[in-house]
Amino acid sequence: MKDDLTPQDAERLTAYMQHMQACAVRSIGYPTATDYDYSALFPLLDISLNNIGDPLIKSTYELNSRDFELEVLEFFAEIFNAPVNNWWGYVTNGGSEGNMYGLYVARELFPNGMVYYSDATHYSVQKNVHILGLNSIVIRTQDNGEMDYDDLSDMIQLHRDHPVIIMANIGTTMTEARDDLNKINTVLKHLAVKQHYIHCDAALSGVYSALLQNEPRFDFSCGCDSLAISGHKFIGSPIPCGAVIVKKNYKDRIGQVIPYIGTADTTISGSRNGHSPVFLWYTIKKFGREGLIKRAQDCIALAQYTVKRLTELGLNAWANPGAITVVSPILPEHLRKKWQLAGEGDVCHIICMPGVTKRQINDFLLDVQDELQSKG
Amino acid sequence: MKDDLTPQDAERLTAYMQHMQACAVRSIGYPTATDYDYSALFPLLDISLNNIGDPLIKSTYELNSRDFELEVLEFFAEIFNAPVNNWWGYVTNGGSEGNMYGLYVARELFPNGMVYYSDATHYSVQKNVHILGLNSIVIRTQDNGEMDYDDLSDMIQLHRDHPVIIMANIGTTMTEARDDLNKINTVLKHLAVKQHYIHCDAALSGVYSALLQNEPRFDFSCGCDSLAISGHKFIGSPIPCGAVIVKKNYKDRIGQVIPYIGTADTTISGSRNGHSPVFLWYTIKKFGREGLIKRAQDCIALAQYTVKRLTELGLNAWANPGAITVVSPILPEHLRKKWQLAGEGDVCHIICMPGVTKRQINDFLLDVQDELQSKG
Repeated sequence: MKDDLTPQDAERLTAYMQHMQACAVRSIGYPTATDYDYSALFPLLDISLNNIGDPLIKSTYELNSRDFELEVLEFFAEIFNAPVNNWWGYVTNGGSEGNMYGLYVARELFPNGMVYYSDATHYSVQKNVHILGLNSIVIRTQDNGEMDYDDLSDMIQLHRDHPVIIMANIGTTMTEARDDLNKINTVLKHLAVKQHYIHCDAALSGVYSALLQNEPRFDFSCGCDSLAISGHKFIGSPIPCGAVIVKKNYKDRIGQVIPYIGTADTTISGSRNGHSPVFLWYTIKKFGREGLIKRAQDCIALAQYTVKRLTELGLNAWANPGAITVVSPILPEHLRKKWQLAGEGDVCHIICMPGVTKRQINDFLLDVQDELQSKG
Repeated sequence: MKDDLTPQDAERLTAYMQHMQACAVRSIGYPTATDYDYSALFPLLDISLNNIGDPLIKSTYELNSRDFELEVLEFFAEIFNAPVNNWWGYVTNGGSEGNMYGLYVARELFPNGMVYYSDATHYSVQKNVHILGLNSIVIRTQDNGEMDYDDLSDMIQLHRDHPVIIMANIGTTMTEARDDLNKINTVLKHLAVKQHYIHCDAALSGVYSALLQNEPRFDFSCGCDSLAISGHKFIGSPIPCGAVIVKKNYKDRIGQVIPYIGTADTTISGSRNGHSPVFLWYTIKKFGREGLIKRAQDCIALAQYTVKRLTELGLNAWANPGAITVVSPILPEHLRKKWQLAGEGDVCHIICMPGVTKRQINDFLLDVQDELQSKG
């Protein structure tokens, strides 16, 4: 029996790890915080933690981090103004799972509901809608990526025999646009829609928008029924994760609709990563609320700086209010590849996540300047 | 801005980590390998790896482990006799996601299919069936936990107007029973069922049963259409993970059925953990195929030893052929709690996973002996 890698495999692994470390230095285009240091927690990686099942119900599997998960959820429930004593949630494997959970809850409440979401919505939502067997209508967006509320109104008007399920974006993938819950609620009220459900896909901007109390608000005090965030984005985690928060009376209703599942099997995933909740807890505790607010302000300031500098270079760059995403005219492929900038149509974006430094941005700007000069 | 934990938080974290390490020593009841050491890979935990989307299609996000994921999938495809050039798969967040993926593919092929699964099936399957909006019938089990094929035949006979979707267990949760694909195929043939799909939930026993070529076989050469395994069980990973392998022509059909999703969005989760594939690759490479076979044989030998010793103590313990799960009459709660033994009805089980030592088993047996003597 072998007990170690072959020299070839070991060499390959080392080369891979070095390559990843080198790539990480140039990543300013994807929404993952990189300023974390979880080395104090590495001893936990020797243990198979598993938060299987409902985080709020004790499990017989001792190797878990449920206490930490609960504190993380309490932190999120508080910043999102979840109704006291009437919220439930869990740490997910990422934003997609949280969005699927929200749609799942909505479907159990309104099996013949029609789902409305803007065409700037993350592609995974279409798949989740299909998996759940729901009907849906895609709504036009405004130029900044925000939902076109007139189009929403027209479409709901044509389907007033269906309960309304809205998937609102709190930070779209490309331009970090936020759908306005006040305007959505106005549409619903005007059309006398009584059966409605609003899920917020707050994967990208949810946490810092809530901390900064950016307007328009999107939380449970503004008509949100459930909300999904990403944990590996603003908070930061090497492993994709997230959280979903839902009104407890809705989640309890799921329990009634599916009496044959154990009360504890209330999450979509079964075995659940126990390390991510500890990572999230660690960062939340390390920075504290004030520290996280400062961290968000720094990101927004850096985004504004980037917009200003790109504009000075003659590029039509912009950012939505309170956003950390800078939208730029599409840049040549070699620059997008070097700096990991996702492009769509005629735009690409830089995302000033925690960990992106002014120095990185300046290096990137030098590259842009060189490119513009070489083209004369 | 704080830049570290408060002394109270730091103390609590240390106490938690020590408690987890202490608990891990006594865990002989849950199916997770514990003999891994991934410390060589810890530097990767400083990087947000993400294998977003289809593992077989290049991504623009550079911080990934797709090459390693592909090799892991190739290893599994080979041991499960997946059709050469006609398989597809991905590393999942666990067995449940792989099972949901199999059912999802089956539903796309047979939207009015009836799902049949035994009542020893993992509870998550019922939830997945519900999420996907499929109809299902639960089949009786034999005493050893294996499907009752007569009951299966009777139920299919009553619903011959529906395509048949079978969720076969390759290692049930409580008794590690394996449903027999040969017998299932005989039933399908006898009832002239032409439209059928068999997904194997091989989360627990799949990998070592395939390596040891245990009879009855359950792989793609025996009528399996898709198969899900767990990665944190026999291979071992601190973070729950798994893999799903499916015939490529089925998965391609999903692409046609859902034309509006990007070709790359072929997985259920969106952002995908990039560390787990490297963990799996590391163990597969470290042991090699022969090493993994030896490791499985050691587990089975330890299970047989445990059965023998429990029997000598006067307990009616048993194990299914080739199984590493030892079924015992239910033990008192304090023993189940100490040794982390899951109980159901009048039985509980010990699972001799890689990492469970003879010494641990002997310590457990001493506790059982003391208990029996104290009861006189």
